[in-house]
Amino acid sequence: MSGADRIKQLAGIMELPGFSKSVGMRVVSAESGKLTMALVKRPDLTQFFGHFHGGVIAGLADHAAGACATLSMPEGKIAVSVEIKINFLAPADGEEIIARAEIIQGGSTISVVKVEVSSRKAGAERICAFATATMRAMDLPAGFR
Amino acid sequence: MSGADRIKQLAGIMELPGFSKSVGMRVVSAESGKLTMALVKRPDLTQFFGHFHGGVIAGLADHAAGACATLSMPEGKIAVSVEIKINFLAPADGEEIIARAEIIQGGSTISVVKVEVSSRKAGAERICAFATATMRAMDLPAGFR
Amino acid sequence: MSGADRIKQLAGIMELPGFSKSVGMRVVSAESGKLTMALVKRPDLTQFFGHFHGGVIAGLADHAAGACATLSMPEGKIAVSVEIKINFLAPADGEEIIARAEIIQGGSTISVVKVEVSSRKAGAERICAFATATMRAMDLPAGFR
Amino acid sequence: MSGADRIKQLAGIMELPGFSKSVGMRVVSAESGKLTMALVKRPDLTQFFGHFHGGVIAGLADHAAGACATLSMPEGKIAVSVEIKINFLAPADGEEIIARAEIIQGGSTISVVKVEVSSRKAGAERICAFATATMRAMDLPAGFR
Repeated sequence: MSGADRIKQLAGIMELPGFSKSVGMRVVSAESGKLTMALVKRPDLTQFFGHFHGGVIAGLADHAAGACATLSMPEGKIAVSVEIKINFLAPADGEEIIARAEIIQGGSTISVVKVEVSSRKAGAERICAFATATMRAMDLPAGFR
Repeated sequence: MSGADRIKQLAGIMELPGFSKSVGMRVVSAESGKLTMALVKRPDLTQFFGHFHGGVIAGLADHAAGACATLSMPEGKIAVSVEIKINFLAPADGEEIIARAEIIQGGSTISVVKVEVSSRKAGAERICAFATATMRAMDLPAGFR
Repeated sequence: MSGADRIKQLAGIMELPGFSKSVGMRVVSAESGKLTMALVKRPDLTQFFGHFHGGVIAGLADHAAGACATLSMPEGKIAVSVEIKINFLAPADGEEIIARAEIIQGGSTISVVKVEVSSRKAGAERICAFATATMRAMDLPAGFR
Repeated sequence: MSGADRIKQLAGIMELPGFSKSVGMRVVSAESGKLTMALVKRPDLTQFFGHFHGGVIAGLADHAAGACATLSMPEGKIAVSVEIKINFLAPADGEEIIARAEIIQGGSTISVVKVEVSSRKAGAERICAFATATMRAMDLPAGFR
């Protein structure tokens, strides 16, 4: 399968009913070892102060890290999270958050990914969170290959 | 304000429109230094395999840690997350997840909280995630005191 | 090999020249899923303020987590650290630090361990750090089995 | 105090008796928001397999993060670690390890720093660990200003 086909496969998985689709995550771009995802603000994604909720930010970072790691794994594998650690750096008070994932260490079994999350407000971006995630490879179930 | 009043205040904040309300988080119990929250599964909260999505698990853990830390802070303060780290231990394949937060170290400025998340399936519980979170105290905006 | 023999084997490994021996780490006790190690203060283990250095605390926590995970793995395996996360809760201003590791999730490939580190001063203990570590199993080299 | 003077002050603190001096940590370079430290291998700094011990790697990363954060804080402040999280990516089997710290978010109270640790072997460098650390500002005791 070509790189483009694998990205299409990933995008297809994200279109399945579930959390990533319901909150509106989308893949913005993907290249070797890097992947960017984004998410537009909605009233049901905010916390107390009207900014993106930490769980939504962590969810986007986790998903971007997993997709990024999956693309660097052998075909037929999907990355699942062993753990994720995220620092919240500033209020995510923009209209959109963008998660830029980058492989720190790829591997056929364990991968480590860093993710910078920015908040876009009136056209300007500001970093609002930084995460690292450890992923491990699982066999992609037959129906999805 | 009494402890019971503060828990009522917290529950009120959770009833505001936003992520915690929209996904259905609820406070199960709260006592000195401990707080339990839960969340029932819905199709829009799952990942690829039909289990709770990591972002939802992290979001519940984060919210439970924040509420737990808030209750241990002076009145008029609310806890905001500095960082959270979560290990995913087993698929959250139950009908409900329960997050049990407990203060490791309280403080007027910084608190550290651990959270054990269990998945309940057919009446049996199994741990599915473990998190630690660092929280700092912010002034609760005037409208919410 | 019996449990007692495996603990003896672990203690033997700790007696090999290297960091754990040079700083004076020792196993205090070990039982199923739990292991306690300790370390006495020396001038070369302190930081700026004369308390235990964060690296020494992290090193003891890491070592305790690894030994604890190793004992829960099949014979012939040794745990190596995938990652460790440690919160420093209070100055480690005692004469000794004690790390109590406990398996959160054992496994033949990946284990997750939590570690509470206390500082003992004039007979009283106070928690000074809390860590979680992810460990993976490696084959113990032939010479050490 | 000039930037150069502050770096000299930091180097002076590292020359005080204690862990950083005893293991041989040294500042390689420092500029705005970045700081590099290194450490040469010795038999008392290794683990089981003869590579740098995880505690030593974590200790160097922690120290580099703290020094880096201190330089971005107002004069008269010193950074102390709230927490550190480190992923071990490859055996640190070189003759020297180099920790490159960089501010992700500076601040007068809380700073977040990332640290890439490389192992240098026969002139070639390879990344062996990646850490993020949360630091908070404390008043530098009078004697050290």
